[in-house]
Amino acid sequence: MEMREMDLWYTEKQTKNHGITTKINKTLYHDKSEFQTLDVIETAEFGNMLVLDGMVMTTDRDEFVYHEMITHVAMNTHPNPKRVLVVGGGDGGAIREILRYPSVEQAVLAEIDGKVIEASKQFFPKIAGGLDDPRVDIQVADGIQHVRDNKGKYDVILVDSTEPVGPAVGLFQKPFYEEIYEALKEDGIMVAQTESPWFNRDLIRQVFRDISNTFPITRLYTASIPTYPSGLWSFTIGSKKYDPLAVDEAKLHRFDTRYYRPELHKALFSLPAFVLELLQPEGE
Amino acid sequence: MEMREMDLWYTEKQTKNHGITTKINKTLYHDKSEFQTLDVIETAEFGNMLVLDGMVMTTDRDEFVYHEMITHVAMNTHPNPKRVLVVGGGDGGAIREILRYPSVEQAVLAEIDGKVIEASKQFFPKIAGGLDDPRVDIQVADGIQHVRDNKGKYDVILVDSTEPVGPAVGLFQKPFYEEIYEALKEDGIMVAQTESPWFNRDLIRQVFRDISNTFPITRLYTASIPTYPSGLWSFTIGSKKYDPLAVDEAKLHRFDTRYYRPELHKALFSLPAFVLELLQPEGE
Repeated sequence: MEMREMDLWYTEKQTKNHGITTKINKTLYHDKSEFQTLDVIETAEFGNMLVLDGMVMTTDRDEFVYHEMITHVAMNTHPNPKRVLVVGGGDGGAIREILRYPSVEQAVLAEIDGKVIEASKQFFPKIAGGLDDPRVDIQVADGIQHVRDNKGKYDVILVDSTEPVGPAVGLFQKPFYEEIYEALKEDGIMVAQTESPWFNRDLIRQVFRDISNTFPITRLYTASIPTYPSGLWSFTIGSKKYDPLAVDEAKLHRFDTRYYRPELHKALFSLPAFVLELLQPEGE
Repeated sequence: MEMREMDLWYTEKQTKNHGITTKINKTLYHDKSEFQTLDVIETAEFGNMLVLDGMVMTTDRDEFVYHEMITHVAMNTHPNPKRVLVVGGGDGGAIREILRYPSVEQAVLAEIDGKVIEASKQFFPKIAGGLDDPRVDIQVADGIQHVRDNKGKYDVILVDSTEPVGPAVGLFQKPFYEEIYEALKEDGIMVAQTESPWFNRDLIRQVFRDISNTFPITRLYTASIPTYPSGLWSFTIGSKKYDPLAVDEAKLHRFDTRYYRPELHKALFSLPAFVLELLQPEGE
């Protein structure tokens, strides 16, 4: 008798009319929290995949890109980051990268949904591994409130949010960037994940304008993340003092990373024309 | 009575276990040639889409990336390209970009499948528009044979091939690069599309090694193409004399392009670590 396994595929509509589809070996976890639905699936192509509210957050195979790239450009621009905040980022990947810096004394994780942290510890041990480090302070709390309550405290703040729907909407708005400005020390620097230059053009324009109106230095860069919409992702930096384009690359920290390299640091800001036009005051 | 349209989606398995799915408004064309199946579909997200043997070749919305990027890096590195060959590229997009250079006297298209040219003229007029230019010599012929028969003729050769299956297999092999070397003038330069750094790692390693063993200067760069596997695509340059990293960016031609910019020319070669490792002699 022939035995056949059920052929399971996970399909995510990344826009109304386009998406990815990927083969599932098995489903590992499904839950609902106060904030969102959580799923972990074992895929054939990308290993374990974390899905929140039906959107891919991270996978074993390509997580290194997102976590290195949200972390090292800002961290390596700041000459001496001691206190660092991650807003969101409950999977722990950004924390893992932050802890590579010997100057870091405290890394605070303000994640609103404790279930994300628990699921990551269980199903993504390589990503969440740093969360048990004694320098890490995990706060299951609203990141907006945390930022509001900690003025002048941080050297670097990373906004490692979900998509701008549901609980994360406020993380893409100007009042939040203004409160981040206040939560940073006088030479502090922030970075936010800011979606796809192909599919979220209005959002990127608005965020870049809002951060430009808040910080004296604003920069945008991109990275290749195959499981994210369009495969191209953007990050926006706001900085009070240090310009990522003014660093001496020869003096940057070098780690055993798989995407970020010091030699890439400045080149990241040379943008394709269709991305650069998002940063022009008048837009297209 | 409620009337509902059929909900049509095109799904392409880009690897055995992963792919894209995109909504179709209507199918415009289906045919078979001696070499491959040809389809043109009107998609909701990307406009018209050309599909050969079940693989996306180009779309209205993102074609500019591929066609600019396979063309301008090599063309703008050569100081005075007069005679240019495109192997494959029957859609005409590379030809369109080549014709922007005032130095070009002749642009030869060696496309094995005349049906690709006809379909492109009918359904992608903006891409194929340059094919009627008097400087263009369209040869419906085997590109390998054409290269073999034209020694020392070309300033620039672009290998704008389909995936390395079926008729295009020979376009990814060392004997072909050696024949391209012979078909180039003594200061000639070639570029080939060389697949995804995420999904075609062995192929890129092999091609880079083969071109390195044929040309004194070999360089690889990437671009973001959302409808191609992983969203990240690679191109490999082989050059007899001119190094793309040695150009004076201030003197490069500037066109009304949407991806390539002179300011991007050198930065393109600053690669993420996981791509750079493909170019190391020992590999990973």
